[in-house]
Formats: sequence, structure tokens, C-alpha cells
Amino acid sequence: MVFKKIDLIGRSTESFDGAVDDALDRAEETLDNVHWATVTEFGVEIASVEGREYQAEVEVAFELEE
Amino acid sequence: MVFKKIDLIGRSTESFDGAVDDALDRAEETLDNVHWATVTEFGVEIASVEGREYQAEVEVAFELEE
Amino acid sequence: MVFKKIDLIGRSTESFDGAVDDALDRAEETLDNVHWATVTEFGVEIASVEGREYQAEVEVAFELEE
Amino acid sequence: MVFKKIDLIGRSTESFDGAVDDALDRAEETLDNVHWATVTEFGVEIASVEGREYQAEVEVAFELEE
Amino acid sequence: MVFKKIDLIGRSTESFDGAVDDALDRAEETLDNVHWATVTEFGVEIASVEGREYQAEVEVAFELEE
Amino acid sequence: MVFKKIDLIGRSTESFDGAVDDALDRAEETLDNVHWATVTEFGVEIASVEGREYQAEVEVAFELEE
Amino acid sequence: MVFKKIDLIGRSTESFDGAVDDALDRAEETLDNVHWATVTEFGVEIASVEGREYQAEVEVAFELEE
Amino acid sequence: MVFKKIDLIGRSTESFDGAVDDALDRAEETLDNVHWATVTEFGVEIASVEGREYQAEVEVAFELEE
Amino acid sequence: MVFKKIDLIGRSTESFDGAVDDALDRAEETLDNVHWATVTEFGVEIASVEGREYQAEVEVAFELEE
Amino acid sequence: MVFKKIDLIGRSTESFDGAVDDALDRAEETLDNVHWATVTEFGVEIASVEGREYQAEVEVAFELEE
Amino acid sequence: MVFKKIDLIGRSTESFDGAVDDALDRAEETLDNVHWATVTEFGVEIASVEGREYQAEVEVAFELEE
Amino acid sequence: MVFKKIDLIGRSTESFDGAVDDALDRAEETLDNVHWATVTEFGVEIASVEGREYQAEVEVAFELEE
Repeated sequence: MVFKKIDLIGRSTESFDGAVDDALDRAEETLDNVHWATVTEFGVEIASVEGREYQAEVEVAFELEE
Repeated sequence: MVFKKIDLIGRSTESFDGAVDDALDRAEETLDNVHWATVTEFGVEIASVEGREYQAEVEVAFELEE
Repeated sequence: MVFKKIDLIGRSTESFDGAVDDALDRAEETLDNVHWATVTEFGVEIASVEGREYQAEVEVAFELEE
Repeated sequence: MVFKKIDLIGRSTESFDGAVDDALDRAEETLDNVHWATVTEFGVEIASVEGREYQAEVEVAFELEE
Repeated sequence: MVFKKIDLIGRSTESFDGAVDDALDRAEETLDNVHWATVTEFGVEIASVEGREYQAEVEVAFELEE
Repeated sequence: MVFKKIDLIGRSTESFDGAVDDALDRAEETLDNVHWATVTEFGVEIASVEGREYQAEVEVAFELEE
Repeated sequence: MVFKKIDLIGRSTESFDGAVDDALDRAEETLDNVHWATVTEFGVEIASVEGREYQAEVEVAFELEE
Repeated sequence: MVFKKIDLIGRSTESFDGAVDDALDRAEETLDNVHWATVTEFGVEIASVEGREYQAEVEVAFELEE
Repeated sequence: MVFKKIDLIGRSTESFDGAVDDALDRAEETLDNVHWATVTEFGVEIASVEGREYQAEVEVAFELEE
Repeated sequence: MVFKKIDLIGRSTESFDGAVDDALDRAEETLDNVHWATVTEFGVEIASVEGREYQAEVEVAFELEE
Repeated sequence: MVFKKIDLIGRSTESFDGAVDDALDRAEETLDNVHWATVTEFGVEIASVEGREYQAEVEVAFELEE
Repeated sequence: MVFKKIDLIGRSTESFDGAVDDALDRAEETLDNVHWATVTEFGVEIASVEGREYQAEVEVAFELEE
């Protein structure tokens, strides 16, 4: 019944909401029992991409299996 | 002519913008003279809701009546 | 090959994404070699505007010319 | 469906746990729908009391009635 | 015997000390048992006033009645 | 000889000390060479449990095997 | 309609208010459309001056011309 | 009538409350006029001790003699 | 040629500037080679004094003798 | 195309640069697609080692495989 | 007699000291009266360079001409 | 068996590592039982010295004698 938190950075060419969903999609595909998430940073990558890539760093909390 | 600040957490099943507007709608319904607001945290609730609930913690500043 | 960072605050009557893009549009119009940006604050101005003005404070990093 | 957060400081001559419970007891007596709380500071008052008074500053989140 | 803390922003055309006193005057007019206060930000408003308006954001702690 | 740190959240219906021990018990069951831990947040969950659930977020440092 | 923020450090042999005004005087002499300012640090230089030099680090926000 | 603050780290094999009291006992044995204290970190040492050693970093404020 | 920093809290019934000077006066009476100081908190004590007591917490840096 | 960040602490008897490289060497041996790293703390262990052990806590970001 | 602070990021393939010097060299080539600097972040870029590029973000303070 | 932490600032004309060692050398000359240290700031003094003086602010923890 212990939670663990991990840091993921999602990315989207559309929006910050899309970048958060990108990180949460990944978390929910690979982890059971994802409970909540907190955004720790929003950024934009410009030089190494075409246009703008919106990025969201997200702390994801999930319940560890016993 | 003194301001007071309070902490509200708005919620939306759609987006972070919607969660901020949810908190501001509540503030403007119940308070006169809301001046500005600052976002202090964006989070997502997952385990206790269907899908994802976007949440925004917002500090709302309003002018106190004399 | 040194980067410089400056602080800009973009504004939008629509959304926080729009406010960030407003700041980045300004940066890219006046600076070469913008590399990335980090959001340092989201706020909403209410009292001095009609409706709500979404604001985003953004640190923009660009490469200085030699 | 909006949450509000308030800052309370509970006190106990026994322990920090007691100080947190003191703040939560007060919150639950006077507010409906208290959802969660976060400790923001633990301190000890010494000069103005007999022995030691343990203090806990607690952010309490409750759901506003519609 | 629980304390509550609230955030007020006082204003003065003269000085930061005056802005703090403005917030404390308001607190003491409307609350019994104000115990202490902490300054959390000093700012200056320029564009929307004549001259300069000194502002002080102050956390005010008072004892709740039983 | 490199350390890694992970974030765990332990829970107890009794006390914050119990919540920290809950996280450390889990860490020591599944990891060798746990060296130290730091508490990064104490919270209390109220709405979704009976009574109060004390929670402790803990950064746990352990030595990686070579 | 984008704001830019810059960091200035004003100095006064008299007071912190004087140090803030020193930074704002400089900003208003050289920039149009200064909107607001926030104090980020108060310090005192002692060893390299006679008596005490009060210093105020101030973030000044001004509107960029289009 | 000036206060000074020092940083002490108390230790206990039993509890965080015990670790805080350990630091305060030391402070009160060697300093007159201890007024208050604030906890700045709770940690647990595991590798170099038997079992777990609870540690509390505490800022202790005392009044200097004239 | 190493500096040491200590934390002092000065007090004044008049102003924050007075509280900072109170701490610096004490430092300069008892320490040689005080170089600079930084304000880390401004507060006001109300309940235990007549009127208001302005307090300034100050980090004072001085050069250690060899 | 999601990044994950982990916290490693590298160690060196020589220098802080060596401690950072120690953490990065470990990361690159065991992870593909390490993109960047940020130093979050520099420390020195003295009591439990001969001489001084320089330590660097490093957040390492790598791209998750799909 | 007002100081201004700017944020530069220097880079080196050798060391963090080299990255700081890179930023300071640039500052001293283009600005008169550089007084001091503070490091605000050390990072390492890995994916887009050969080997490792050490980076140092530095706040540089210089005296404005009258 | 209580630890105390003090703040020292070491200096070197060569490197940040040298500045940290300067502070630790001083600590070890005058204190028994120095256990560990944490760097809290790296800075560079330029205007009042020839060339550059690297400075490191270091929190040093040592065990108090009983």
C-alpha cells in the first residue's frame, strides 16, 4: 500500500495539455494503479525541432503492488 | 484599499485552462472586486475519477471593502 | 557560443498556450537563434481588462552571436 | 465542486502528531467536506510557555458548497 | 487555541513600512487576537497610479475563538 | 559505488512516524543497501478513508550494485 | 503588448526605500512604460564603503514597444 | 535584545519527536534564553547504524545577552 | 581568509530599517571584519508587545581571523 | 518519445567534476538515450572516508523506448 | 551607480569551471564594470554533442554607466 | 551526540574545488569531528580582486562534544 513517484517528460507539437497527456498515456500503458500526477515544469523546445515542441515534466504517483 | 488573497482549486474534465476558469468563476460569483490570480500548481487526479480530472490551484486577489 | 536568457511576459485573451506563444512570437521576431524556453509563472489579470487576460512569464534562451 | 485551502496552526504540549490533530479537529468541527491536509511547518515554542509547545502549520483543503 | 493565517496586501504612497502598517491596521480592525505577521513580498505598482504605490504582502496570524 | 534515490509515500492510520516506517519497510524489503532517507512532505488524507490516514513522502537513497 | 522584466540593484546610504527608489529612478529614466516592480533581495554592504550601503535587488517589468 | 539562530541536528533511535527533543535538550543545557525552534529537515540514517536513527535538523533561536 | 555567516534577528519599535540596524549594530560591536549582510525575513510581533515590534532576520558575513 | 528522469549520486576522491562524471558513466552504461543531466547538489563526505569524498547529486534525463 | 544582472550560460567540453569562465569571458568582452557573478545551475548536455558538454548558468552583475 | 551546522565561505584564485577545500581546511583546523558538508552557493568576485576569485559557500556539519 505504498505509493511510488516517478518523473516523466511528455511532449506535444500542439499544446501543454497534450504534453501532459503524452506523459500520462505512457504511465498508464506501463504501470497499474496510477493515482495522481503533478506538473513540475512547462517548457518549449525550439532549436532542435520544426516549429515548437511543448514539454511537460510530470511527477506521476502509482501504488506499488504487494 | 487592502487586498486579500485566497487559495482555490478548480477542476475540469477537459483542460487546465478549464480548471483555472472553474476556480475564477467561483471567485467572481462570491466575491466583489477580484483583481488578479496566480496559478500555484497544476495536477491531475486519476484514481478516484473516470478518465482524468485536471486541477488548478489558484491564488485569487480581491480588494476588501472598507 | 554562450546563451543568454531573458524574461518575457506574453498575454492572450484566450488561453495560457496563447500567452506563451505571444511571448515566443515576440522573441523570435527580434532575436536570432532562440533555443528553448521555460514557463516561470501563469497568471490572470481581471480588474483592468474586459473578461480575463491570461499571462505567461517565460524565460527564453538564445545563443549570442560571436 | 471547487476546493478552498486555509492555513491553520495547531498546538500540543505532547507531540507534533498532536499538533496536527489539533488543527484538523478544529477544521472538522467548523467545516464540512474536509478532504486532505499538508504540513507546511513544524515548530516549537519555548519562551512563553511551560516546557515545550509543539506547533504544526497545516494547509487544509475542503470542498466549497455550491 | 488554534491559529489561522491569512494573506493581506497593504498599500502606501509613502513607504514599505507604511504598506505593512496598512495591512496590519486592517487586520486589527476586523480580527481579535492578532499575534504576529510575516512579510512575504514587497512590490511597487507604477503604471496604474500616480507616482509609485508601495505594496506589502503580509501573512497575518491570529488566534481563533473557541 | 553510485547511489540512486527514489520517492516513496508511506501510509499509516496511527502516526507520521508510522508512515515513514511504512515507506522504509517497503524499501528495505525490495532493495539492498539502503543508506539513508529524507522526508519531503507530510500530509493527511481524510475524505477517502475512515478517520485520518497519515502520509509521508520519503526520498530513499540506496547504493547501486556494480 | 509583451512585457519584459530586468534585474536592477539600487543603492542608498540612507534606507532600503531609498535603494528601491534608486533602482526605479534609473529604470524610469531609460525605459518607457515601466509597469511594476518586485523586490527580490535586500542586502547591506559594509566592508567596502563608509558606514552602511543599503541595497535592493528589484525586478522591473516594462511593456515592449511594438 | 537581539536573537541569534543556530542549526542543530538531534538524533533518536525511537522517533522524530525524540530527535527534536534531543536537539532542544542540548540547546537548553548550553544556552540561556532559548525562545523558539523550527524544524528544517527530518531524515533517517540507516546504513551506518543498527536499525534506524531518526534525525531532525532544527533552527534554534535564543536571545543574546547584552 | 575564510568568511563565516551567522543569523541574527534585530528588533525595533519604529521600522524595518531600524530592526536591520539593530542586528548590524550588535554584529559590529562583537565581531571584527563584518563585510556584508542579507535580509532573510521581515516580521512583526504584535501579541506579546505594546504596539508593534518590527523584526529583521539578517545573515551577517564576516572574515575569520587566521 | 517520453523522457524519464532519475536521481543518481556519483562520488570521487578527486573533484566535483569527477563525481558528476561517475554518475553519468553509470547512467550511460545502463541506459540508452541519455539526453541531458542537471546537478541538484554538491556535497562532501568526511567522517566515514579517508580524506574527502566529493559527491554530486545529478538528475539524468533519458528517452524511454516505445 | 545602479547594478544590472543578466543571465548567461557558458559551455565547455572540459569542466564546470571552464563553463563558468566561458560565460564570464563573454561578459567581460562586452560589458564594462563586471563586479561579481553567481552560479544558478550546472548541467550537462549529452545527446546533441560528442561526449559531454558542461554548462553553467551564471547571473552576472555589472555597474550601469550614468 | 548532536550535530551543529555552520556556514563558511572559502575562496580560491584557481577553482571552485579549491574554494570548497579552503572552507573545509579551515573547518578541520578549528573543529573536531567534522562529518560532512553541503555546497549552498558558488560565486565569483571580480571587481575587488585581480582576475577572478572563486567562492564557495559551504554548510559544514560537525558533532558537538558532550
